[in-house]
Amino acid sequence: MTAEIITIGDEILIGQIVDTNSAWMGKELSRIGIEVVQISSISDNTDHILAALGLAKDRVDIIFITGGLGPTKDDITKRTLAKYFDSELIINAEVLEDVTNLFKAFDVEMIEVNKKQAEVPENCMVLRNEKGTAPGMWFEERGKIYVSMPGVPYEMKSMMKEQVLPKLKNDLDLPHIVMHTVLTQGIGESFLGEKIAGWEEAVAKDGIKLAYLPSAGSVRLRLSITSRDLASAESLVKNHVLQLEKIIPGYIYGNEEEDLPKVVGKLLQGKGLSVSTAESCTGGYIAHLLTQYPGSSAFYKGSMITYSDDIKTDQLAIDPIIIEQKGAVSEDVAIGMAESVRIKMNTDFAISCTGIAGPDGGNEEKPVGTVWIGISGNGSAYAKKYRFGGDRTRNIEITAMTALNMLRKEILKLT
Amino acid sequence: MTAEIITIGDEILIGQIVDTNSAWMGKELSRIGIEVVQISSISDNTDHILAALGLAKDRVDIIFITGGLGPTKDDITKRTLAKYFDSELIINAEVLEDVTNLFKAFDVEMIEVNKKQAEVPENCMVLRNEKGTAPGMWFEERGKIYVSMPGVPYEMKSMMKEQVLPKLKNDLDLPHIVMHTVLTQGIGESFLGEKIAGWEEAVAKDGIKLAYLPSAGSVRLRLSITSRDLASAESLVKNHVLQLEKIIPGYIYGNEEEDLPKVVGKLLQGKGLSVSTAESCTGGYIAHLLTQYPGSSAFYKGSMITYSDDIKTDQLAIDPIIIEQKGAVSEDVAIGMAESVRIKMNTDFAISCTGIAGPDGGNEEKPVGTVWIGISGNGSAYAKKYRFGGDRTRNIEITAMTALNMLRKEILKLT
Repeated sequence: MTAEIITIGDEILIGQIVDTNSAWMGKELSRIGIEVVQISSISDNTDHILAALGLAKDRVDIIFITGGLGPTKDDITKRTLAKYFDSELIINAEVLEDVTNLFKAFDVEMIEVNKKQAEVPENCMVLRNEKGTAPGMWFEERGKIYVSMPGVPYEMKSMMKEQVLPKLKNDLDLPHIVMHTVLTQGIGESFLGEKIAGWEEAVAKDGIKLAYLPSAGSVRLRLSITSRDLASAESLVKNHVLQLEKIIPGYIYGNEEEDLPKVVGKLLQGKGLSVSTAESCTGGYIAHLLTQYPGSSAFYKGSMITYSDDIKTDQLAIDPIIIEQKGAVSEDVAIGMAESVRIKMNTDFAISCTGIAGPDGGNEEKPVGTVWIGISGNGSAYAKKYRFGGDRTRNIEITAMTALNMLRKEILKLT
Repeated sequence: MTAEIITIGDEILIGQIVDTNSAWMGKELSRIGIEVVQISSISDNTDHILAALGLAKDRVDIIFITGGLGPTKDDITKRTLAKYFDSELIINAEVLEDVTNLFKAFDVEMIEVNKKQAEVPENCMVLRNEKGTAPGMWFEERGKIYVSMPGVPYEMKSMMKEQVLPKLKNDLDLPHIVMHTVLTQGIGESFLGEKIAGWEEAVAKDGIKLAYLPSAGSVRLRLSITSRDLASAESLVKNHVLQLEKIIPGYIYGNEEEDLPKVVGKLLQGKGLSVSTAESCTGGYIAHLLTQYPGSSAFYKGSMITYSDDIKTDQLAIDPIIIEQKGAVSEDVAIGMAESVRIKMNTDFAISCTGIAGPDGGNEEKPVGTVWIGISGNGSAYAKKYRFGGDRTRNIEITAMTALNMLRKEILKLT
């Protein structure tokens, strides 16, 4: 089963936004056995949209359209779809109710243009939008499926996850795609490749595709195989994952779509433990990662972001003489920060970091990318020195990930 | 002059990587007056590439191709281009020398497959690759230009900047494109559309295109016009922007590629002011936004992330009786947090927030999305109540953006 994604909007063509929707959709569709063979980004223009739809229907079985559904005048997807299907725009009562309720809930008066959001082509099945006002639309015409969704990423994603993907899985006879992602931290892509070269060959011999997916401070390894025999494909993948765990046990922190903050949060919550952070160079990013998912109040209590040296002294009682002698980026300061915040916040564990995120502030002894990460808890406190790279954003990210992995290992020491 | 970008590679289609090349190229091409009308991402497949080239040449004047030029087996762009142009692959002496020198420089032995990199279709003009081994290619055939470049972003960018863009500007008679983006915060897309409907009409009458670009907590308005007369187009756009500033002064926080944290940081730094934050529901996200860019230590001192009620009391001296009577999500608590952190961190301003990010924790009186944002500084302290939506991630983002915009307005009150 093949698909094309059509994204509508000049903002992608002129490079004002990067099209992340298509990548997300491509990944989700691959996962259920639908092969995306083309992504076409086109302008907000009736003729161009009609032409793209006409070409896509000859190429693939399913056409996904995102963008061009908002309330303002530059949105023409809906009218064009009505034209394409030779259908009429009609007010859909359910959508009108959804939109009206949304405005009521926010205590905002509805204007005429918002009512227009409830208009859809007569021949569509409406996909209700739980996150916004523009409805999605599902069409079936001459053996092809067309799914039109808003371009706002979180609206599109919610619609895909709740409605579109389940319906595709239910309606179509799709092959099974077994995928498994192993998450690693603390080893670069090329070194990882060298370490697991033999395993990689064995995986390939069994018809499993392997992909390296590097992101800041983490490399994900994705195994995938398409098969009609679900059980044997699953057991094949499972066996190879077990093998891999034996080869690089220290680097694996989890599986699948979990990310490290989620893994750490679950570990803490499962053991009834709490954490706080004292952050300098990460400026609150570790706290943000720990609190991004629901339920974080079960294990996360609070943080001190001590960016300036004064604040390190005033709020975390770091001796100014130590800062002067050893520098703010030093083992003693990292340990002091972790100890101090753990006691202040009364938590089981604390993470700290102090470093030079860059691009300025480095010197020969402590170049940009030098970071001390401290851990307090489990009856001890220590800090480790790292030297990451020259890029500020990446240094902030990799410091946070490395700190969380240190904490994860510390938690695992508890029985 | 119109263009299409064709990106070749399965990794984009299955969502393994996000296509950032096209956005970058779209931006650079727009800037020199070349209009990108389509971006097509297709698979590493001869027939698919041939079909895409055939369609593109009927749609546009210039076709840019990226990807599929590396040394490994899945790269077939070069062979397909030779086939498309009915040309032969021949060894290019200059490229062979470049490749040989590159291997020498890295002291790595060259293998047979690397020599193949020096092969190009006979009818092309070679674009030398200063950052890697795969050469770019420029073809002119039946009035159309085809430019093929490697997919590695920094190789492509270097080739575009050093060779392709200068050659396009030199060879072609291009119009000027004037663009201006106005950044707004605090007003939704549809309300903004209503407020500026009259202005929008005047803009359209002058031949200027307007686009609404919404993202979490912010809507960007982009004006663009293509013209042969640069000076008059610039003054036309400038006048409309000035008009817009009169219509919605409170909602505009900046222009062009700036984002709100950067704008706030610059304002603070310019006036020699400092800020701290006391965050509950945003869990450090505001601090992270303020510290993500270089130089933030000039205006940012530190934060207290007080997630639990205990920590609010212990660290920010919020009276537990007030929390009990009015709730942690209340005006008094927001004001108390802002005042307390400003004094503790000894900063000119402080931002606070306390709210229900969701998905749990809401009730009838205070549903998910209820947030109090506090500001202290300028000799006063106050808090405002907001009701955002049901999505946790979005609530965290929009709270942070709204808080930063409140701070921005407060700074602007100082003369």
